[in-house]
Amino acid sequence: MDTDTIAAISTPVGEAGIAVIRVSGPDAVRIADQIYQGKSSLSEADTHTVHYGHIIDPDSGEQIDEVLVTVMRAPRTFTREDVVEISCHGGMVPVQNVLEALFSSGARSAEPGEFTKRAFLNGRIDLSQAEAVIDLIRSRTDRAARVAMHQAKGRLSQLVRRLRQDILETLAHLAVNVDYPEYDAEELTAQTILERSRHIKEEIEQLLQTARQGKIYREGIATAIIGRPNVGKSSLLNALAHENKAIVTDVPGTTRDVIEEYVNVRGIPLRLVDTAGIRETEDLVEKIGVERSRQALDEADLVLLLLNYAEPLSEEDRKLLQVVRNLTAIVVVNKTDLEPQLDLQEVKESLQDIPLITTSIKREEGLDRLEEAIADLFMEGRAPSADATYVSNTRHISLLKQARQQVEEAIDGIQSGVPLDMVEIDLKNAWQTLGGIIGDTVGEDLIDQIFSQFCLGK
Amino acid sequence: MDTDTIAAISTPVGEAGIAVIRVSGPDAVRIADQIYQGKSSLSEADTHTVHYGHIIDPDSGEQIDEVLVTVMRAPRTFTREDVVEISCHGGMVPVQNVLEALFSSGARSAEPGEFTKRAFLNGRIDLSQAEAVIDLIRSRTDRAARVAMHQAKGRLSQLVRRLRQDILETLAHLAVNVDYPEYDAEELTAQTILERSRHIKEEIEQLLQTARQGKIYREGIATAIIGRPNVGKSSLLNALAHENKAIVTDVPGTTRDVIEEYVNVRGIPLRLVDTAGIRETEDLVEKIGVERSRQALDEADLVLLLLNYAEPLSEEDRKLLQVVRNLTAIVVVNKTDLEPQLDLQEVKESLQDIPLITTSIKREEGLDRLEEAIADLFMEGRAPSADATYVSNTRHISLLKQARQQVEEAIDGIQSGVPLDMVEIDLKNAWQTLGGIIGDTVGEDLIDQIFSQFCLGK
Repeated sequence: MDTDTIAAISTPVGEAGIAVIRVSGPDAVRIADQIYQGKSSLSEADTHTVHYGHIIDPDSGEQIDEVLVTVMRAPRTFTREDVVEISCHGGMVPVQNVLEALFSSGARSAEPGEFTKRAFLNGRIDLSQAEAVIDLIRSRTDRAARVAMHQAKGRLSQLVRRLRQDILETLAHLAVNVDYPEYDAEELTAQTILERSRHIKEEIEQLLQTARQGKIYREGIATAIIGRPNVGKSSLLNALAHENKAIVTDVPGTTRDVIEEYVNVRGIPLRLVDTAGIRETEDLVEKIGVERSRQALDEADLVLLLLNYAEPLSEEDRKLLQVVRNLTAIVVVNKTDLEPQLDLQEVKESLQDIPLITTSIKREEGLDRLEEAIADLFMEGRAPSADATYVSNTRHISLLKQARQQVEEAIDGIQSGVPLDMVEIDLKNAWQTLGGIIGDTVGEDLIDQIFSQFCLGK
Repeated sequence: MDTDTIAAISTPVGEAGIAVIRVSGPDAVRIADQIYQGKSSLSEADTHTVHYGHIIDPDSGEQIDEVLVTVMRAPRTFTREDVVEISCHGGMVPVQNVLEALFSSGARSAEPGEFTKRAFLNGRIDLSQAEAVIDLIRSRTDRAARVAMHQAKGRLSQLVRRLRQDILETLAHLAVNVDYPEYDAEELTAQTILERSRHIKEEIEQLLQTARQGKIYREGIATAIIGRPNVGKSSLLNALAHENKAIVTDVPGTTRDVIEEYVNVRGIPLRLVDTAGIRETEDLVEKIGVERSRQALDEADLVLLLLNYAEPLSEEDRKLLQVVRNLTAIVVVNKTDLEPQLDLQEVKESLQDIPLITTSIKREEGLDRLEEAIADLFMEGRAPSADATYVSNTRHISLLKQARQQVEEAIDGIQSGVPLDMVEIDLKNAWQTLGGIIGDTVGEDLIDQIFSQFCLGK
């Protein structure tokens, strides 16, 4: 358990009105007080109070910046430690200077995710709640944010805890029989355990059924727009983006050319692949070739193939139709405002189950139908419930699947008449596995790995 | 005077632990309270206190985000109005949702600089202090930040106010003579006014003498690195950047290809021009041609011309030497670790007053001398004083020059014996002009224009 005092900038790096530097640990107030000049000392400050003043260079005594300092004392804080937040001017030099003043007064630079890690280690939140904090920050749509908020508030944890409680009670029942076989007829016990285990499995199943939608909300649908030059790919992109307020982001750690663009389609975040390429060359296929584009398409969750209503089907179109046939795709026949030249029947025949939408992006016709088709494909007609809990994190999904497997083994065991103490092991394993979701039964390595994916200052 | 309540994000846009949304105006607390769910109502909160809770969607009542809300009541706030700061999770969706909740509860979206504008209009800070806030945020070096801090704390304002006071006293003296000519001999008055005016002019001069350095601290030195391919331009760039922790920034509002890179050389911010071009093509001249590069060089404050010590002077080198001769430049003869082939004497002869430095960037030799030469060129040997006030803002400089001109006219007038009421007009003009620096005598248009250059949320 770390007991030193850590500090980091908690707001994004850039130029803005203010930046917030967070300090947490037993010496947070003392360290901040050393570099603070105000009406009165921070040490005497009540918890949850804000103080105007200046941060001074501990060496020269010179004023570095004009600040507001918030003092929050343990345990009513995010980390359950003493926390000081320094709100300084949001420029690179002021932030750097305040941080350096903190470091030379005894604070250590916080690692990414270290504040949240402390909140977890000090028992303020469990692991799935901590993971939800990051999902909330990274969410691209309202719905994704709501899924994360539910998880942050501990809804998933509650369900997991109830499941574990069910398993514990089943185990208790089982233990009574194993320890005092005379107390109950073994067969009767087996019957009860079987029923309980089936119920537990069913509950796990129900959670897992939310996983596909949950993952979509959390990660978005990787979407590729393909088609011959001038068929309207960048117009479609712009139309979707314009109507739904696209969010363009640099992907941290990659080259500056990779832009991710998210479009919100009925609460579903579409992550548009290689939009920079499309915007610049108007043509993904032309740019990277049909062969390589096929590869790129394999990584897409959804392919939108655009065809031109005003031109007969070309050889390239036929190739692309062939390519998308085995993918999750929607064929969009665009330019219905022009004289028809395309043999719609031929297209339909080659499509099998793939939906076909006709649009005139120019006249803003058909976009609604396209959005509906996307929602149908990915939401399977289910209206997303505002109150439902979704499992969205790959780690949680894989633990749930593992637990389901372990409960199934218990069920199989009972059914094939193996000794109940063998069944006990399977159920204990499931209990253990589910604990991984909320962090009760995970090792330090995994914890470190999970929190290292957080951003600095969180 | 606006009396509505405004709201905006005050931290940079991006993904991070937290984002701060600032609300200011008479209804700030009431509006925030409407969307806040916590232990107790914000309306009852003491000033400068922090409250944990949730922001709820005013329509659905659903919790949007987990937040800390700071309540600060007028007049002890940045704007001198009631201010509420909401610290929410630093993602795009949470920020957007909290802002929308505020807007639908009666807040208006703040314009860029509007918070600071209110601080100015409500008399908390004057115009030059407001301008310093932005300089502080945009500062690239410690020294630049310090210059801005001095100005933010009102040092420049004090000097300007003293100057205006001097002028007012002179005008009072003058008025006595104009109104009661019998009270004093006109000649004696003229003598006093002359002395006082000369003193005022001298004070303005002294301020203006800090302008060149002040501007350098504030804006950096636009620096171009030129030379033939493979002479070591990008190595020099990297060496300067590496040693001095370069800050790379996108320039807002321009294309994504324009990168500004700042290097801190002894407190002087060098703004390296077209570094993207150099890094990619290793050659500014090759890329844009000698003719066009000449044009680019005209916009540079400093040109670093690299020559190769291990090769004889080429025709291109000679052209470049010719080009830089009339610019502020330093010639860097690099690769002194290799066998000399360059005729140093020839270079020296063609240089006139331009400094020549020899380096081996590979062996990290000579960089110190280069940095010293840069400091010599721009600091004129003066050690920057930690306590001095620098005039750094172009607007201030031009107002000071104008005031100096007006005082000079007064002096000339007295000396050529024009009636004292003519002199009075000149001095009144100077008083008026100087008032523009602190915002006492500027119109609404100029104020709007100045604050519109601020960032949103400031």
